Amino acid sequence: MKIAVDAMGSDSAPGPEIEGTVRAVAERGVEVILVGDEAKLKPLLEKESYPRERIEIVHAGDVIKMLSFDLVKQGRAGAVVGAGNSGAMMAMSIFNLGRLPGIERPAIIAVLPTIHGRMVALDVGANVECKPIHLAQFALMGSIYARFTLGKENPAVGLLSNGEEEKKGTDLTRDTHAILKGLKLNYIGYVEGSDVYKGKADVLVCDGFTGNVLLKVSESLAEATQVMIREEVDKSIVNKFGMLLALSALRRFKKRVDYAEIGGAPLIGVNGLSIICHGRSTGYAVKNAIFRAHEFVENRINEKIVQELRTAGLEKSPGE
Amino acid sequence: MKIAVDAMGSDSAPGPEIEGTVRAVAERGVEVILVGDEAKLKPLLEKESYPRERIEIVHAGDVIKMLSFDLVKQGRAGAVVGAGNSGAMMAMSIFNLGRLPGIERPAIIAVLPTIHGRMVALDVGANVECKPIHLAQFALMGSIYARFTLGKENPAVGLLSNGEEEKKGTDLTRDTHAILKGLKLNYIGYVEGSDVYKGKADVLVCDGFTGNVLLKVSESLAEATQVMIREEVDKSIVNKFGMLLALSALRRFKKRVDYAEIGGAPLIGVNGLSIICHGRSTGYAVKNAIFRAHEFVENRINEKIVQELRTAGLEKSPGE
Repeated sequence: MKIAVDAMGSDSAPGPEIEGTVRAVAERGVEVILVGDEAKLKPLLEKESYPRERIEIVHAGDVIKMLSFDLVKQGRAGAVVGAGNSGAMMAMSIFNLGRLPGIERPAIIAVLPTIHGRMVALDVGANVECKPIHLAQFALMGSIYARFTLGKENPAVGLLSNGEEEKKGTDLTRDTHAILKGLKLNYIGYVEGSDVYKGKADVLVCDGFTGNVLLKVSESLAEATQVMIREEVDKSIVNKFGMLLALSALRRFKKRVDYAEIGGAPLIGVNGLSIICHGRSTGYAVKNAIFRAHEFVENRINEKIVQELRTAGLEKSPGE
Repeated sequence: MKIAVDAMGSDSAPGPEIEGTVRAVAERGVEVILVGDEAKLKPLLEKESYPRERIEIVHAGDVIKMLSFDLVKQGRAGAVVGAGNSGAMMAMSIFNLGRLPGIERPAIIAVLPTIHGRMVALDVGANVECKPIHLAQFALMGSIYARFTLGKENPAVGLLSNGEEEKKGTDLTRDTHAILKGLKLNYIGYVEGSDVYKGKADVLVCDGFTGNVLLKVSESLAEATQVMIREEVDKSIVNKFGMLLALSALRRFKKRVDYAEIGGAPLIGVNGLSIICHGRSTGYAVKNAIFRAHEFVENRINEKIVQELRTAGLEKSPGE
């Protein structure tokens, strides 16, 4: 199944999109439909070397995202990869693709680094106010996602709370906790903030407001740490020289935690999949986002979600 | 006004408590009542050199915290400094001291480092479910606290949300936003996670669930970053040598962000004040917590809160 890539979404489009697409089809047996201004894309693609049959251009003027989702709706592509305004991407995904049968609220997944590897957190922004059933569906979707795309066999699912004890949390977390205990998941209960980056949970479930704060605050802290350390290092020649010698270690660390390794944030729970990339995405990030979309489609994750939702009795009743 | 210090609360009590108290009274004109086992404390204090009249011991067997708060109730001390279980400290503070007139919910303050200095976040854990009036009272208390103990003349007050635009947020943040716009505060509107450590707000207001996640996730990320960088550095002799040369810069950075510089988390909104210290507090942290308590009392912050609450028409009606 092909992946549709919005070629014009990133801040420096279509450069990163072209580079990412070319590298993706060259490195793995992926096929991509590039959606965008054909007059611009064609000459750029012609300069590149890659298996020609694996990239198709579909021309679109200013309805690029809309058309990308249409390709999924028509069954010509299995997923959309696109950078730019994440709110717009999300709204268009849900509007154009519709929800997966039984899913009440699609959710945005963030794949975050931990001391021991990576974990999946959801929802990190699609649903600001949630009900317990939404969080339970997130838990199930996240668990399947972690199984197939992070390679965690029996992922530990945790519910983000303000403490580990059952009596902690809000009405929302307590009601969700009660549902999750009854599901066939490797549910480990509440996970508090201090355990998040220890990798205690492979799947961290939360409402979209808290998840957004978690994600953004983490980015903010990482940036501030960098700025402050640089300021201190710049005060001394010896410190600066030391940092130079330590640079390769810092680069390895950065690669471990780099968001571009994942490529984008999947919106899960729609008929298809969309992977929302940062406006500042590099070609490397776009390539990885295409790989994630490809894995998702190849592993038929949506079919598994629908099945397991039914088995768990967690589907929304029709008409609800 | 004296400060009551629970001498037995920390993990290695009474060592840090004695050290912190002795240093505090030696460095500034603070007076402390050490509450704890007199038979243990007296010989330890006798070895130290400090102005004798500034430390008084009040003997208590196993009701140390209770007695410490009693000293505030009796007017013999203005605040309590104590380490250990923060839930217990909080419950006992509220139970023993009672709420400040007009205040509905006391809140825990975290003083956090930013690129430009420090900011105050509240509530970081006392109140898991909040109403708009609670958050508005937090904003007012936090603003006064930042003015007098962080030396910010007209502190910028922000409301933590999932985006800057007014339409973002939850029912709780939107209703709070409406109240805050009408107050005589330097209210700057919503602050999103990505701006937290940029120091955009001097006072960051949130409910205790979100605040707890913010605080704990930040600690978790800082720890994980340290572990991962160390792992990478340990892979190469050159990197290790470089880090050694950069060590003094990292120490300066650590001092900038070190929680011990603040000493503890004030519980604000009670008749008095309690500063809750980490179980693992050092003497240095205890000393700083005593200084914070002293500044709070000397600046008559509670009187100012009661006054400004009344002026703002934000007091809880009696009997409510």
